[in-house]
Amino acid sequence: MMEGPALLERYLDIRRATERLCEPLAVEDYVVQAMPDVSPAKWHLAHVSWFFETFVLRQRADYRPLDERHAVLFNSYYNGVGPQFSRAARGTLSRPTVTEVFAYRAHVDKAMTTLLEHADRLGPATPVIELGLHHEQQHQELLVTDLKHNFGVNPLQPAYRARSRPRRAAAPHSLVAFEAGVVEIGHAGTDFAFDNERPRHRVALAPYALGSHLVTNAEYLEFIDAGGYQRPDLWLSEGWRIARERDWQAPLYWEAIDGAWRAYTLGGAAPLELDAPVVHVSYYEADAYARWRGARLPTEAEWEHAASGRPVDGHLLDDDPDDPRPAAAAGLSQLFGDAWEWTASAYLPYPGFRPLAGALGEYNGKFMVNQMVLRGGSCATPRSHIRATYRNFFPPDARWQFSGIRLAQDS
Amino acid sequence: MMEGPALLERYLDIRRATERLCEPLAVEDYVVQAMPDVSPAKWHLAHVSWFFETFVLRQRADYRPLDERHAVLFNSYYNGVGPQFSRAARGTLSRPTVTEVFAYRAHVDKAMTTLLEHADRLGPATPVIELGLHHEQQHQELLVTDLKHNFGVNPLQPAYRARSRPRRAAAPHSLVAFEAGVVEIGHAGTDFAFDNERPRHRVALAPYALGSHLVTNAEYLEFIDAGGYQRPDLWLSEGWRIARERDWQAPLYWEAIDGAWRAYTLGGAAPLELDAPVVHVSYYEADAYARWRGARLPTEAEWEHAASGRPVDGHLLDDDPDDPRPAAAAGLSQLFGDAWEWTASAYLPYPGFRPLAGALGEYNGKFMVNQMVLRGGSCATPRSHIRATYRNFFPPDARWQFSGIRLAQDS
Amino acid sequence: MMEGPALLERYLDIRRATERLCEPLAVEDYVVQAMPDVSPAKWHLAHVSWFFETFVLRQRADYRPLDERHAVLFNSYYNGVGPQFSRAARGTLSRPTVTEVFAYRAHVDKAMTTLLEHADRLGPATPVIELGLHHEQQHQELLVTDLKHNFGVNPLQPAYRARSRPRRAAAPHSLVAFEAGVVEIGHAGTDFAFDNERPRHRVALAPYALGSHLVTNAEYLEFIDAGGYQRPDLWLSEGWRIARERDWQAPLYWEAIDGAWRAYTLGGAAPLELDAPVVHVSYYEADAYARWRGARLPTEAEWEHAASGRPVDGHLLDDDPDDPRPAAAAGLSQLFGDAWEWTASAYLPYPGFRPLAGALGEYNGKFMVNQMVLRGGSCATPRSHIRATYRNFFPPDARWQFSGIRLAQDS
Amino acid sequence: MMEGPALLERYLDIRRATERLCEPLAVEDYVVQAMPDVSPAKWHLAHVSWFFETFVLRQRADYRPLDERHAVLFNSYYNGVGPQFSRAARGTLSRPTVTEVFAYRAHVDKAMTTLLEHADRLGPATPVIELGLHHEQQHQELLVTDLKHNFGVNPLQPAYRARSRPRRAAAPHSLVAFEAGVVEIGHAGTDFAFDNERPRHRVALAPYALGSHLVTNAEYLEFIDAGGYQRPDLWLSEGWRIARERDWQAPLYWEAIDGAWRAYTLGGAAPLELDAPVVHVSYYEADAYARWRGARLPTEAEWEHAASGRPVDGHLLDDDPDDPRPAAAAGLSQLFGDAWEWTASAYLPYPGFRPLAGALGEYNGKFMVNQMVLRGGSCATPRSHIRATYRNFFPPDARWQFSGIRLAQDS
Repeated sequence: MMEGPALLERYLDIRRATERLCEPLAVEDYVVQAMPDVSPAKWHLAHVSWFFETFVLRQRADYRPLDERHAVLFNSYYNGVGPQFSRAARGTLSRPTVTEVFAYRAHVDKAMTTLLEHADRLGPATPVIELGLHHEQQHQELLVTDLKHNFGVNPLQPAYRARSRPRRAAAPHSLVAFEAGVVEIGHAGTDFAFDNERPRHRVALAPYALGSHLVTNAEYLEFIDAGGYQRPDLWLSEGWRIARERDWQAPLYWEAIDGAWRAYTLGGAAPLELDAPVVHVSYYEADAYARWRGARLPTEAEWEHAASGRPVDGHLLDDDPDDPRPAAAAGLSQLFGDAWEWTASAYLPYPGFRPLAGALGEYNGKFMVNQMVLRGGSCATPRSHIRATYRNFFPPDARWQFSGIRLAQDS
Repeated sequence: MMEGPALLERYLDIRRATERLCEPLAVEDYVVQAMPDVSPAKWHLAHVSWFFETFVLRQRADYRPLDERHAVLFNSYYNGVGPQFSRAARGTLSRPTVTEVFAYRAHVDKAMTTLLEHADRLGPATPVIELGLHHEQQHQELLVTDLKHNFGVNPLQPAYRARSRPRRAAAPHSLVAFEAGVVEIGHAGTDFAFDNERPRHRVALAPYALGSHLVTNAEYLEFIDAGGYQRPDLWLSEGWRIARERDWQAPLYWEAIDGAWRAYTLGGAAPLELDAPVVHVSYYEADAYARWRGARLPTEAEWEHAASGRPVDGHLLDDDPDDPRPAAAAGLSQLFGDAWEWTASAYLPYPGFRPLAGALGEYNGKFMVNQMVLRGGSCATPRSHIRATYRNFFPPDARWQFSGIRLAQDS
Repeated sequence: MMEGPALLERYLDIRRATERLCEPLAVEDYVVQAMPDVSPAKWHLAHVSWFFETFVLRQRADYRPLDERHAVLFNSYYNGVGPQFSRAARGTLSRPTVTEVFAYRAHVDKAMTTLLEHADRLGPATPVIELGLHHEQQHQELLVTDLKHNFGVNPLQPAYRARSRPRRAAAPHSLVAFEAGVVEIGHAGTDFAFDNERPRHRVALAPYALGSHLVTNAEYLEFIDAGGYQRPDLWLSEGWRIARERDWQAPLYWEAIDGAWRAYTLGGAAPLELDAPVVHVSYYEADAYARWRGARLPTEAEWEHAASGRPVDGHLLDDDPDDPRPAAAAGLSQLFGDAWEWTASAYLPYPGFRPLAGALGEYNGKFMVNQMVLRGGSCATPRSHIRATYRNFFPPDARWQFSGIRLAQDS
Repeated sequence: MMEGPALLERYLDIRRATERLCEPLAVEDYVVQAMPDVSPAKWHLAHVSWFFETFVLRQRADYRPLDERHAVLFNSYYNGVGPQFSRAARGTLSRPTVTEVFAYRAHVDKAMTTLLEHADRLGPATPVIELGLHHEQQHQELLVTDLKHNFGVNPLQPAYRARSRPRRAAAPHSLVAFEAGVVEIGHAGTDFAFDNERPRHRVALAPYALGSHLVTNAEYLEFIDAGGYQRPDLWLSEGWRIARERDWQAPLYWEAIDGAWRAYTLGGAAPLELDAPVVHVSYYEADAYARWRGARLPTEAEWEHAASGRPVDGHLLDDDPDDPRPAAAAGLSQLFGDAWEWTASAYLPYPGFRPLAGALGEYNGKFMVNQMVLRGGSCATPRSHIRATYRNFFPPDARWQFSGIRLAQDS
């Protein structure tokens, strides 16, 4: 566990990184919320500060909050802490202004710095601060995906940032086989991990193979062109119903103009990059695509077993926010970064799971139903945030994350 | 009809008045939309410019729009002109920014100024410009009511502007009787009026009496205290259903804190001013209140007959935006200003009604169903905009306008 | 006012007429409710009995209800009497069975017969019984329209009853002019009328003309063929929205099969009868049709002034339930029967309106908002139930009644 | 696999058993559908016949359907076969009548009998007939649960059948421990099993313990009395939201009258039987209850490992439809019958899962998302239908099945 000066440095680094992601924004861009699942940028900026304020600073007698009303406004979902302002209405609040939100951040940073400069006073706060930093990194990713959404559904489709992407071809695709066995997955040891990654436990695997890379836009286009969105036999029943209701004909942000596909990216709308990984597909689409290929999605145990021990490389947020890139190397790659990979596993507690004590137990555990696990991080995930045991989770109809597809097969 | 230099001066006056209403705003305040019925301030600023651009400037060969995409973004509901961006989603757009919207205004103003400086070129545009100015005045009122709403439902309840209101007692209330007769209502002559005010026509009136003033907060409190919101026998069936579904227990913006009523005003939340007119009631509440008093609401013909020939005085927008004020004078007063008065009349075409030709015919006529007429203007109505024949209209459940109550009785 | 033996005879006649309408039904047909606006036949049978039980029999000390639970189950909307079972869920109740409902009718009939055989005991009950009989006649009409709906949306489209209709051509259409004037409308005198038809009062009419007949299916087809359902300029804004949401392309019950229109009738699906009046159109469609013809709908005052003093002839329910028939006679006709005629008048209280005292005051008055007046009765209206002053009312989107169109014009 | 005469006998037995369940019904009881999840009894009767007709009889050249329209009306969800009548609107159809539905059954039975009497002609139909019989047994259970629902939410709460239940105390509760190990679950061999029970495969189990019996009403009452429905910390986030929206304060069918709990049963409303197993709880309630007890729900692997090899005894449908009964024996019991047991396992494909070929592949596989597995059968499950490997599944908010709770613990 990191301590004292190192922790302070890390705190300031991560806090600065969050603000750096906002540099391209106009004031107005901080305010809007184009659908209930996303949050305004200024809400993210405030909420991560609220987290430190609530779980670290307010536990100490000498802290004075800047404004008591922040307690409700910036509580996301912690019933154990108190009531919450309506999630779907976050984008209806013009106040506090962006300036006021940055002042709130400064107020929290000042108190946190004082605290971290006196490491001897930290006591049980250290792991909570550690959690708060990982929490802020999660919101860095959400900042990027939510901004992409707010910009992407605006008819003007402004770029989040100009980009100059070297084009490259994807490395050739192959299947990588794994043997059957009883293996261990889940986190062990004292390094940071979320409660939902523990405990490490045994699972029995049948022989299987994984696709070496993420499915590309070109490959996914074949599914579309083969009528994949018109064939109920390829879809889960619930997925078919939703795809019809929402008139899904392609991944989110795709648009066919005069027969040519374009996709909105962080750099603005552009011709679809065929060799890049397909992203912004729901679990339903990932599952239907795999079925059409005569394949399936990997389970989270299969994925983790394959990823375990490999270096956390790949295209992650630290490279500067940029959409997923074509696979560079042959063989099993892209496990980390580029796109979260939908797995065939429901998000459920591991055997022996124990949530954190108190209100922080609401962080992960209470969402363990009706969601699917995604693995590996995306182009919007900070490098120091991801690891092989990391379990992300979203409802199967979610599409605004950088969510993609890796195929698996029985072998 | 106003022409040439006078029209230019009036154009610039009204455009400036609109912008003056925005002076107290932070950038963020221009962006949000707290419910589908209201629009972001920057949308109002752009839409009124779009009106001149669409119906005046684009009719001329030499005009170059600033951005073709404004045509869809800022069209409110004119199907005859083209498609419209989703009304309920106006608050999800961070772009164009406020700065860009003001640039759009400047672009339109420049072209309009050039046009108006050459009055000889105006031709058939003059009445359309006149209409555009009245249209902009309507949106001045909506700017105020929509800002009040966005601020009022924000838990921080920021003030739109600081106010210092002299308190005064309401003048004594009385009944003012009118004789039966066949009278004329509606607009005649060449002065500006909307199409829905024409033609002037005969109506038969039975003897009636009107309350001398608007119903006050104190009087309305008696209704609340008598259980008015718990007695279905006082309500229209549809009103009762809606009041239950939305849990109405008092007018919009009222809040009981420790047994004392407070109301959000343009100056922020404040103790309820008992002698001021009650506002932010729906038609359903106005109707239930009147029934409880053994009275009824006036018809629009009764109201107009009473108001006809009286001077347009009263507390209107030009005094600076401020909530309704207690009645100052004894006898029939407050007909103009303070609060729009719900009438018992459905919004329907007058006998012989002809809408304007072309897309401008959509301005009023297509809304003539399921709405009720309100008369007299409010504290947010510009003085030069209101007149005795003016017909405002809202669905019976609308509460965010400055809508109040004047009682009537058969006599 | 009818009394004693004559009233008993009338009571029994009307009660029998209700049951006769059910003779073609299978047990299952009494149970279902294909949309919230319609009620199961057995609910109608029970509710009209509940009306006599509640407002007549329970007022007397010696009456014993068959089952106390009927008080809630068969209360439609009288808050003054007590709570009501959910309207939309009436079709989820298999019990009481049809046999039990007929037993309930017999129980009420027995007590009512005893009461009516002793006219001296009636006292203030007489006008309530009179009201109850008119109430039951209203439900005779609803029985027919609701059965038509339940059968008509069933893919099997069973006939309510076999019919053999002589075909005939519609009489030629013309315009019938009326002079301007201040006339009286509304009910006067001691004959039965609903409270909403009173008091008689003066209205000023401009010169107008009415179509001699109801608009025919052939005429309405021209509107469809001219793209009437695709042109927003013809529609009220709210109507256009609803027509799009519900995908209206023709009147309810019409179906185009291989380019030929068929319509479901009480006799089953049949080729569209071109000379018969168009029915099952909403107010929105009636209004759009009239606008397309360069005409408008009549006001209720215009209609009543034209109908006043004319004999109540026409195709009504007593002929046996059958869909509307082509106009037989030249000149102004079809005022009564065949189809209710949408008027341009909102359903509002007449000047001086007083609802009945007590819970019966909920009969009509509380619905006076967001509905439009229809006049003249339909093929499902009993002859002794209709008159020139009769005001029917439905929301503008209602289509399952026999609602049709008569054109009007300024002249 | 059963063949020839034995299969005919079994076919007739199961078909008769279905009809026997309908003996207590009035005609009206066959028609209604009190919520979208349930189906009218006559729909069940027809649908199971449709299954044989569609997948067996129509595959043969000599079969003549009784009515081609049944193909759509009684298709539940098989897109591979063709379109389906709206599920939520099944209760709006009065036709075909009950008599007609029984005629449909007879028509199918006649053709099936002829076929089964000539076993040599069966060929590949045998496993489909076998599937059809298990399908019909599933609908026997649904007939009972759906009738219970339709009756139970009717204010009259009629009994499905009179019952005379001997009261008995529940056997004492204990924990039964199981060792860790890599075990096999899933179906192997040639006996009938659904595709979703295959293939048999290895799973790793940590040491665990199961409650010896189902949780009783008395035990669940303690949860209620301890404020279980008011404590968000006990609930999954989604469960808490739904419990609030639907105002859940107790299991379905419970009602507190003057402080005493009553529950609707197949025998009508009765005082809550404290020693009987709690039923009609959702997964959310089962999960919250377990958390409150410091326990958890078993996984389906834990359950199956414990149940494997045990005799299929317990209170099942064949005893006559009756609500769950108190546990009779000490030690691990009630595994089969009484109540389906919610597991902590999401309904997902087993490793190597292959759905049936063709449209029958839609039977189970397409529902493998957002549902939880239940195990063990209930008092409404036929004895010959249930087995240790059987996987039932429902969305976590479903309550109208006989769904109960068995606790588990890590040990």
